[in-house]
Amino acid sequence: MSGNTFGTLFSVTTFGESHGKAIGCIVDGCPPGLELSEADVQPDLDRRRPGTSRHVTQRRETDTVEILSGVFEGKTTGTPIAMIIRNEDQRSKDYGNIADTFRPGHADYTYWQKFGIRDHRGGGRASARETAARVAAGAIARKWLNQRYGVVVRGYLAQLGEIKVPFKDWSDVNASGNSFFVADASYVPRLEEYMDALRKSGDSIGARLAVVAHNVPVGWGEPVFDRLDADIAHALMSINAVKGVEIGAGFACVTQRGSEHGDEFTPDGFLSNNAGGILGGISTGQDVVAHYAIKPTSSIRLERNSIDKDGNAVKVSTEGRHDPCVGIRATPIAEAMLALVLIDHALRHRGQNGDVVCETPKLR
Amino acid sequence: MSGNTFGTLFSVTTFGESHGKAIGCIVDGCPPGLELSEADVQPDLDRRRPGTSRHVTQRRETDTVEILSGVFEGKTTGTPIAMIIRNEDQRSKDYGNIADTFRPGHADYTYWQKFGIRDHRGGGRASARETAARVAAGAIARKWLNQRYGVVVRGYLAQLGEIKVPFKDWSDVNASGNSFFVADASYVPRLEEYMDALRKSGDSIGARLAVVAHNVPVGWGEPVFDRLDADIAHALMSINAVKGVEIGAGFACVTQRGSEHGDEFTPDGFLSNNAGGILGGISTGQDVVAHYAIKPTSSIRLERNSIDKDGNAVKVSTEGRHDPCVGIRATPIAEAMLALVLIDHALRHRGQNGDVVCETPKLR
Amino acid sequence: MSGNTFGTLFSVTTFGESHGKAIGCIVDGCPPGLELSEADVQPDLDRRRPGTSRHVTQRRETDTVEILSGVFEGKTTGTPIAMIIRNEDQRSKDYGNIADTFRPGHADYTYWQKFGIRDHRGGGRASARETAARVAAGAIARKWLNQRYGVVVRGYLAQLGEIKVPFKDWSDVNASGNSFFVADASYVPRLEEYMDALRKSGDSIGARLAVVAHNVPVGWGEPVFDRLDADIAHALMSINAVKGVEIGAGFACVTQRGSEHGDEFTPDGFLSNNAGGILGGISTGQDVVAHYAIKPTSSIRLERNSIDKDGNAVKVSTEGRHDPCVGIRATPIAEAMLALVLIDHALRHRGQNGDVVCETPKLR
Amino acid sequence: MSGNTFGTLFSVTTFGESHGKAIGCIVDGCPPGLELSEADVQPDLDRRRPGTSRHVTQRRETDTVEILSGVFEGKTTGTPIAMIIRNEDQRSKDYGNIADTFRPGHADYTYWQKFGIRDHRGGGRASARETAARVAAGAIARKWLNQRYGVVVRGYLAQLGEIKVPFKDWSDVNASGNSFFVADASYVPRLEEYMDALRKSGDSIGARLAVVAHNVPVGWGEPVFDRLDADIAHALMSINAVKGVEIGAGFACVTQRGSEHGDEFTPDGFLSNNAGGILGGISTGQDVVAHYAIKPTSSIRLERNSIDKDGNAVKVSTEGRHDPCVGIRATPIAEAMLALVLIDHALRHRGQNGDVVCETPKLR
Repeated sequence: MSGNTFGTLFSVTTFGESHGKAIGCIVDGCPPGLELSEADVQPDLDRRRPGTSRHVTQRRETDTVEILSGVFEGKTTGTPIAMIIRNEDQRSKDYGNIADTFRPGHADYTYWQKFGIRDHRGGGRASARETAARVAAGAIARKWLNQRYGVVVRGYLAQLGEIKVPFKDWSDVNASGNSFFVADASYVPRLEEYMDALRKSGDSIGARLAVVAHNVPVGWGEPVFDRLDADIAHALMSINAVKGVEIGAGFACVTQRGSEHGDEFTPDGFLSNNAGGILGGISTGQDVVAHYAIKPTSSIRLERNSIDKDGNAVKVSTEGRHDPCVGIRATPIAEAMLALVLIDHALRHRGQNGDVVCETPKLR
Repeated sequence: MSGNTFGTLFSVTTFGESHGKAIGCIVDGCPPGLELSEADVQPDLDRRRPGTSRHVTQRRETDTVEILSGVFEGKTTGTPIAMIIRNEDQRSKDYGNIADTFRPGHADYTYWQKFGIRDHRGGGRASARETAARVAAGAIARKWLNQRYGVVVRGYLAQLGEIKVPFKDWSDVNASGNSFFVADASYVPRLEEYMDALRKSGDSIGARLAVVAHNVPVGWGEPVFDRLDADIAHALMSINAVKGVEIGAGFACVTQRGSEHGDEFTPDGFLSNNAGGILGGISTGQDVVAHYAIKPTSSIRLERNSIDKDGNAVKVSTEGRHDPCVGIRATPIAEAMLALVLIDHALRHRGQNGDVVCETPKLR
Repeated sequence: MSGNTFGTLFSVTTFGESHGKAIGCIVDGCPPGLELSEADVQPDLDRRRPGTSRHVTQRRETDTVEILSGVFEGKTTGTPIAMIIRNEDQRSKDYGNIADTFRPGHADYTYWQKFGIRDHRGGGRASARETAARVAAGAIARKWLNQRYGVVVRGYLAQLGEIKVPFKDWSDVNASGNSFFVADASYVPRLEEYMDALRKSGDSIGARLAVVAHNVPVGWGEPVFDRLDADIAHALMSINAVKGVEIGAGFACVTQRGSEHGDEFTPDGFLSNNAGGILGGISTGQDVVAHYAIKPTSSIRLERNSIDKDGNAVKVSTEGRHDPCVGIRATPIAEAMLALVLIDHALRHRGQNGDVVCETPKLR
Repeated sequence: MSGNTFGTLFSVTTFGESHGKAIGCIVDGCPPGLELSEADVQPDLDRRRPGTSRHVTQRRETDTVEILSGVFEGKTTGTPIAMIIRNEDQRSKDYGNIADTFRPGHADYTYWQKFGIRDHRGGGRASARETAARVAAGAIARKWLNQRYGVVVRGYLAQLGEIKVPFKDWSDVNASGNSFFVADASYVPRLEEYMDALRKSGDSIGARLAVVAHNVPVGWGEPVFDRLDADIAHALMSINAVKGVEIGAGFACVTQRGSEHGDEFTPDGFLSNNAGGILGGISTGQDVVAHYAIKPTSSIRLERNSIDKDGNAVKVSTEGRHDPCVGIRATPIAEAMLALVLIDHALRHRGQNGDVVCETPKLR
């Protein structure tokens, strides 16, 4: 049991169900002295928030966060920071029809088998709503990493179904009207058309996304099991609907020669970044780069074969309010998880004599 | 620091460097009463062992394991099982020329930056030799899982460079003369030819592999961070040279519709397994299926640009004895890691009233 | 950093400062299917609550708990249970005078040295108020332990300053008018007189208490570091103001012979319980018995020598509202901590084949 | 299960049974760059070693340690340090008669109940022999703590049965001929006489001991559960036969007034040390002081009532080679455990901005 805590020195424990009273988390291990208020956390929550465009769930939640502890006179004290987000728009009756049946591809079935009881309303604990608490925690991690080391964590959607969106510019990702987090805003009309057709069809679609951390010092990560890349894989795969994770070149390395894959060094820096900024599980000082695949939403309007709790054959289709592509809102979540991995390793890392050394990356 | 322990209730702590006195591990949490001797562990070590074909490193190690504790009158006692493998063929002088330079794509650089000191001989702690200890631990996990739940863990090489080898039959994987762990032995001649050419060229190549667990009961895995899939991603990504991990459909889900990806239920079982046997981080009772990508070896004979410890430009080429494709020997390692994840979750899992319930999967 | 989580499989993470917005906790790992509502938790909180007699702090808090998650239709679901207690009576101005000075014997000094910032209001995170969250978590643990194994956890005050109160009967502990938790209610008038005099003097006093668990099955506890007794010592010593812990005979064993200390077995049970129900770190099936010492409150009215933040000599005396003997309210806290240790080991324990066996104690 | 690992960032995992092939441990998290060889570890092992005087077990073990990994060219590399001590004098036949019966006060009974199997030879895993591995790990911790912070950890025996030995001088503890670790060597003849009589009687006796750490910086320890004092209590109570732990004034605080117990500050330092160097779970910069009680050995020659595995009444007396007072050899073990707690907190501690600050204690 348990399993709702992430991190060793900077740990986050989340709670809450989709249609319960509230969701939230306790962040333990935030260094003292960081200026912090709800205003630092709310923007990331707003980026993840439902109902911001017609392409995502229309559930209406303000996702207003309240900090309950760990901050005194505007600064963190080194003690646990509890954050709470009250649920507001719980239209639980939408879910009555799935209380006794299982959606194909959904955690309905496994929760029921494992626990013998489940809060079926909106997916209960298995809902992506839980990730709002991660985003809140990640916002704190990001602020500290940025202030202390200049680390910047950001992500984008690289592929929506068959549509690959090449990286153009970071400024495009947050451009006005770009509700897709793509790094080339000129693709937005084409994506909107794609999503409109998809929504009409009652189906859903997968996505491929990227998340990147700039300015990570060299030396973060602990061999051999607590590698930075292994922890990133753990973190990203723990996000609802993620089915694959790549570091750097990822699966492309299968057909690479060693002479191509191994990033050459020069006195002025690395000549490439197939490693994704990690060698031997330890950061190299280059950008940390990961990709991940998000499966299509399992709650779709199309009718599908399933069973009920007694094992009888039934047909299931889901009305409710669901994202036809959960990948669209995944970027802030992945950014949060990457930041949580990085801050934990930042705090674990020590230099040669057991002291922290703020290494300046020797190479870029 | 630390980071050399894997698992919560069934934990493995490994030690040892490539050219140190010995490598080994302590397995803590093995249930009592399991019949165990070196004969249960040695076969898996032999499958991973170097020098078994001309396509892998020619280092000569018998990899003979000795069990030091935790077994009494042929059975485990519930106390820690220490295992040791003495290193025999330490040709350290091969590595003298890399003491002060860094191989592109190798952990040489990051270990030196992180620790300010490194055992450069044969890659030291970053050597794939460390994984022999994991294989030894995994052999114990596999035996217990099999005896207690009938779980079978096995893997194969699915792609070597550009050559995709479709799955034909499990019996082919261990067929005599198939030193590649491919699931269609008829591909062996073509692979041998490919590897011979590669070795001659002085270069190396990547690979894509699969690992599967059969007969996993429904209900293993802890939401939301200690998901079975997240732990598998962690485990596989912690293996040297792994750059990508997929569960079930993996990155193929990006272009799947929800109506295609979500595995339908019938009273007789699931109709497909895009989930890879895991929904919401919890096992479904289907086969647990994962794929992973292994990058090409960084130690190659071809000359490459690098720097020395003082930051000066140098040329580096590695002689020594290296696998031109580390993927070839990766199968037993991934099997071990998957078994270690599964036994940990098997021991963590409890049923509705806090007791263990040996669930019979309701569906296949 | 971090450090605010207790337990492995049944874990509790607490948050909150004495005069912040709220205190509370997340309980992770509670087995599913347990009937639970605020009514199960509130009684234990009421027993610990301040202001219940003239011998404890007069701060007015209703300590009303709200459960935010993890319960569905009246039963636990196996997911995290968040509980919150809003602070009501924050008379922070009482503490203005200690913002820049340190009370002898108080955590004021060490928090300031460690974190460089501290919420001085009411002791902030170091306040005994934090223990209300532990009591709330302990109430859940106690209910499950009782329903599943019949375990009963209870405690009493054995000595207040020089006044030793011999154990007479458990029914006395909760007798009406016994605000001291002593096991012989006839001592109450004498204790009241003692406390009245103490309060008048402006000083405080220590106490010795006992905590006992009945019906603990044989076999709980993990050698060699996660022993049941070691975890109990950890748990009790983590309570504010505790300076000593004894298991069974405790320090009395120093002058015992082996022939006296070792509890003899007969077919009908043990003949004594010097072990306190634990041998080799594992429960014997007898009562688990521990004692602990609580130091006198450091916040006293008497003037004492101290320094301010700049190191200058100052005189310090504390007005505010403080318990002259924190031991008086410690019993519910120790009961909670013992329950938290026991449920964690209950969930970790497995029998010979890796399944849980609900052992009936062979001997009493 | 599991439970054989101690520590978070500097962790020790021990293995081995009294009469198995070997005992040993893996130390994970030792900072790199520490000069280390067997010569640093052996002296502490020699102090704990059996057979050094007629007052302890006559088992003949050289307890020669071999370091297998983690050291390169005489310095630690930051990777796991495995250490092994081969068992030599296994006179297992001495124990044949206790294979089927249980010694009163011994872990025989609980191991058998928990695991359904036990290595009865010499107590198996429950033997104090396991602590040699802790002493080896502690020696590394002590060396690093001393070199990095000047910390000195040492202990002494304060009471043997009824004989209290007041502290006279540290130099007496290791004086030639003082095999009792008492801090007043003039007591040795009296103690020898006492032990000779005891041995003749076939009985055993308890002891009270102290362990102290000098030069601990202010600020080590994490509120609220991972307090320095709570971790020390855990560490000391995890030593075989310990039944009580005190920090600073310990149980004496029960009768202390707050005006007496609270250590006053002056600009020149503390005026007393009732706190034992810890306030609010965090080190104050004063000496860290703990006492602990060791129960009398359960293996005695005197005949006692017991049962056999089938529950039949039997008489048990133990021949073999046993310490009549295990407290005599406990000092090096407690020193090791205290050092292990301290180094873990040293590595966890960070200052205001997340960096390590080597605080100079402001006060003594």
